[in-house]
Amino acid sequence: MGVEIERKFLVDHDKWEKVSKPEGTHYRQGYIVADSGRTVRIRVSERKAFLNLKSKSGSSHMSRSEYEYEIPLDEGLEILEKFTTNGTEKIRYNIHFAGKLWEVDVFSGDNAGLIVAEIELESEDEQFERPEWVTIEVTDDGRYTNAALSKHPFKDW
Amino acid sequence: MGVEIERKFLVDHDKWEKVSKPEGTHYRQGYIVADSGRTVRIRVSERKAFLNLKSKSGSSHMSRSEYEYEIPLDEGLEILEKFTTNGTEKIRYNIHFAGKLWEVDVFSGDNAGLIVAEIELESEDEQFERPEWVTIEVTDDGRYTNAALSKHPFKDW
Repeated sequence: MGVEIERKFLVDHDKWEKVSKPEGTHYRQGYIVADSGRTVRIRVSERKAFLNLKSKSGSSHMSRSEYEYEIPLDEGLEILEKFTTNGTEKIRYNIHFAGKLWEVDVFSGDNAGLIVAEIELESEDEQFERPEWVTIEVTDDGRYTNAALSKHPFKDW
Repeated sequence: MGVEIERKFLVDHDKWEKVSKPEGTHYRQGYIVADSGRTVRIRVSERKAFLNLKSKSGSSHMSRSEYEYEIPLDEGLEILEKFTTNGTEKIRYNIHFAGKLWEVDVFSGDNAGLIVAEIELESEDEQFERPEWVTIEVTDDGRYTNAALSKHPFKDW
């Protein structure tokens, strides 16, 4: 576990299309708990499943306590079905840029049309270089959390 | 994971005191989710911690789908503190009787005075022998689930 410091940005679709990228990973995820202060999530990819717990620590949207546990894939699929009602679906791309890892999520399903990029930082004031396909910052906009997107998907905005 | 078939009984305090028993394990547990249909629980003993998910399958209180994952003890303690508000505390004794395992929970804290024994069965109609310290069956009495006991403890009955 650790405290996670992340910043989140929207992505320019046209510029993103031209980026040469590795193969992405398809994820389906659902929320077992999605309060404002804490979430319990099940995430399933083609080969793996993870239970993830996050709690907000302090007032900033940047910092959270996070715990993640890999579980058997078949159990992950059962939990997704039995414990969650709505979820999100996306392809995640890991992009290395200027010495940092950017996780870019291209949503599908009810959130199709949304592309969001996240960078994890060592401290809240760490400086970093922005790729040209990154546009406005949405770190503090609660609508863009995966928990919020599963309840109020992009298609309904 | 598996479907869990359990029956639950109250325990006669005087007879229980006279039973020769192995050392018990002290547990603290709390609920991250405790709906009527599903629970997510964190349980911490002296040396181990477990995340546990249960969902009711069908109408009977006997059968449930259950998933359990061991996690690091220090993370279990953090999750207990950050993700749960009220919980239960008990000492569990494993008693082997007539070829079956009985799990006897002697509650403390807000549920002090309550002793409950559970037996896990292979099928809902499996026959088994009852130890003399077992009294009335409470399998279908929702007040005796650990989730209910954490919300409405025995001291308030």
